[in-house]
Amino acid sequence: MGKITIIGASMMGSALAFPARENGHEVFVVGTPLDKDIITECKKSGKHPKFEKPFPQGVKFFYFEDWKNAVVGSTFVVAGVSSFGVDWFLNEVLFELDPKMPVLSVAKGLMDLEDGTLITYNQYWERELAKKGINRTICAIGGPCTAPEFVAQNHTEVAFCGKNREELKMMKDMLKTSYHHISLTSDVIGLESAVALKNGYALGIAMNIGNEEKDGEKPHYNSQAAAFYQATKEMSKLLTIQGASEKSSFIGFGDLFVTVCNGRTRKAGILFGQGLSYEESIQKLAGLTIESLVVIKRVVKAVKKQAERGLLSLDDFPFLMHIDQVINNKKDPALPWESFTYED
Amino acid sequence: MGKITIIGASMMGSALAFPARENGHEVFVVGTPLDKDIITECKKSGKHPKFEKPFPQGVKFFYFEDWKNAVVGSTFVVAGVSSFGVDWFLNEVLFELDPKMPVLSVAKGLMDLEDGTLITYNQYWERELAKKGINRTICAIGGPCTAPEFVAQNHTEVAFCGKNREELKMMKDMLKTSYHHISLTSDVIGLESAVALKNGYALGIAMNIGNEEKDGEKPHYNSQAAAFYQATKEMSKLLTIQGASEKSSFIGFGDLFVTVCNGRTRKAGILFGQGLSYEESIQKLAGLTIESLVVIKRVVKAVKKQAERGLLSLDDFPFLMHIDQVINNKKDPALPWESFTYED
Repeated sequence: MGKITIIGASMMGSALAFPARENGHEVFVVGTPLDKDIITECKKSGKHPKFEKPFPQGVKFFYFEDWKNAVVGSTFVVAGVSSFGVDWFLNEVLFELDPKMPVLSVAKGLMDLEDGTLITYNQYWERELAKKGINRTICAIGGPCTAPEFVAQNHTEVAFCGKNREELKMMKDMLKTSYHHISLTSDVIGLESAVALKNGYALGIAMNIGNEEKDGEKPHYNSQAAAFYQATKEMSKLLTIQGASEKSSFIGFGDLFVTVCNGRTRKAGILFGQGLSYEESIQKLAGLTIESLVVIKRVVKAVKKQAERGLLSLDDFPFLMHIDQVINNKKDPALPWESFTYED
Repeated sequence: MGKITIIGASMMGSALAFPARENGHEVFVVGTPLDKDIITECKKSGKHPKFEKPFPQGVKFFYFEDWKNAVVGSTFVVAGVSSFGVDWFLNEVLFELDPKMPVLSVAKGLMDLEDGTLITYNQYWERELAKKGINRTICAIGGPCTAPEFVAQNHTEVAFCGKNREELKMMKDMLKTSYHHISLTSDVIGLESAVALKNGYALGIAMNIGNEEKDGEKPHYNSQAAAFYQATKEMSKLLTIQGASEKSSFIGFGDLFVTVCNGRTRKAGILFGQGLSYEESIQKLAGLTIESLVVIKRVVKAVKKQAERGLLSLDDFPFLMHIDQVINNKKDPALPWESFTYED
């Protein structure tokens, strides 16, 4: 049996405590400074405030002050932060952590560089660490997985990506269960790009749902499917530019499906579709982490930069451009359906 | 203004009467001999018994006996039959119809040849006609479109495929509306394969929904998304073998989405997932045309034949093989999740 230390008590980070502990491993959950109340609650009741189900017996909880003691002897560490904790995790944990300690990250997102290149969080971390002479690789999770269903042991297909196959195999062995089905891939950029991009497009598809509700209609499936079709078309184009493998795209399409059906990004999209402004939507979503808004902003900036450089044509991304305009420029959320047609 | 004659009062065939008539064209709907009651009802009430909404004013209805008079002066003909009417339409209409009269088909499906090749219905028709010295091409529709939502003027993205671009443009001009968004493609085999294959996989995804309900659980989105991911992976593999263009795949993924969410194939899949046999499911579905069952049978036969010939590996199609075994061999419908994982 091994030991897994999860640093960051986000829903996805915390959810991994379940299969890890069910498999008999020692599991420590360490909160970030923003997770103080969550850890207090976990210590008291053994339950994460956002889950209905308590953690399995034996999971131990720590405030961030104790992280260096908690992490000692771990087989690997889970980076359990969202997009908003990426820099914090770099500065407070990764710079201090033994470079030989394997890390598996649940953060989904992309960062745009000056020239319009989109890099993953693990690439970002690896680069920043290298600047200080620290050489390490970081593994990451992608795939259609909402945390509440996962802790309820619903069947879930995910992929772990990274450059070190031995590390990936070890992580898979420790976390796979009868309901947790894990693929392994070296296509880090492809997988992470796919599961990041799906956030933006899921918001766009949900925008259509909200827009139809606003018009007094019951949401329809023909139009959801039409938006879904265009989303896969644009995602695939972007993923090809990112150099992704095909299989990563399919994981991304599954993730798009689950994100449209359920969760925070769907809620956000519906509010924008009903005509709420950025500020009104954020207010209504208080307390929910909306990584999709960050992804959209960065991807749009990068895509525009790449278009300027002649690397792609904005005409291929009418849905992404529309989503951006609705969110950031109060455009009418009704989808630009005719721009989704083609003749070839 | 032109004239459109729809032969076959299937839901999708009949649905096209709406945009055609809304655009001011003359529209004649001719029933097959099996549509007699439908035509009687349409003549009486102006409403198709399967639609809540009546046809637009001015649509005219005919029994099959009158088809040769009805079709005179048409700009084009819609082949409004399902898979089960393909041979009937060939023998009763296509052999008799002026080869210069353009035809747009709504039938979705594939046929398997002896050597495991899968051909589309328009290919099949063209071949059979050519054997009798009749040279014509036939256009077809693909895309995520359920008829009841379409007649309710919900936004719908479809594609028309065919070899004759002028005919396709003419059909698009006559049928496009503010809610009917039409792409045009010469990728006949790709588009028709995509929208046929989605039927089989949608049934498989719905099978999981039924299987979870049977176990007393509320259906989950993680597992639906996992099945959706695998479906896009296998569909894409099959479409590559079929020589499809990428864009046709995306139309197919949108169509997969709508078929999972809504309609007859979903109903069938849920019954199989609950453990009902082929005979029990068919009985419960009485009156509903389940083209997906025909597609699965033919595709499985073709895929097995192609595997025998060394053209593909059955290991790449665990979901399709499972769906077939559940339907035709009473296998436990619980999905083979681990077989959906990969390491690359």
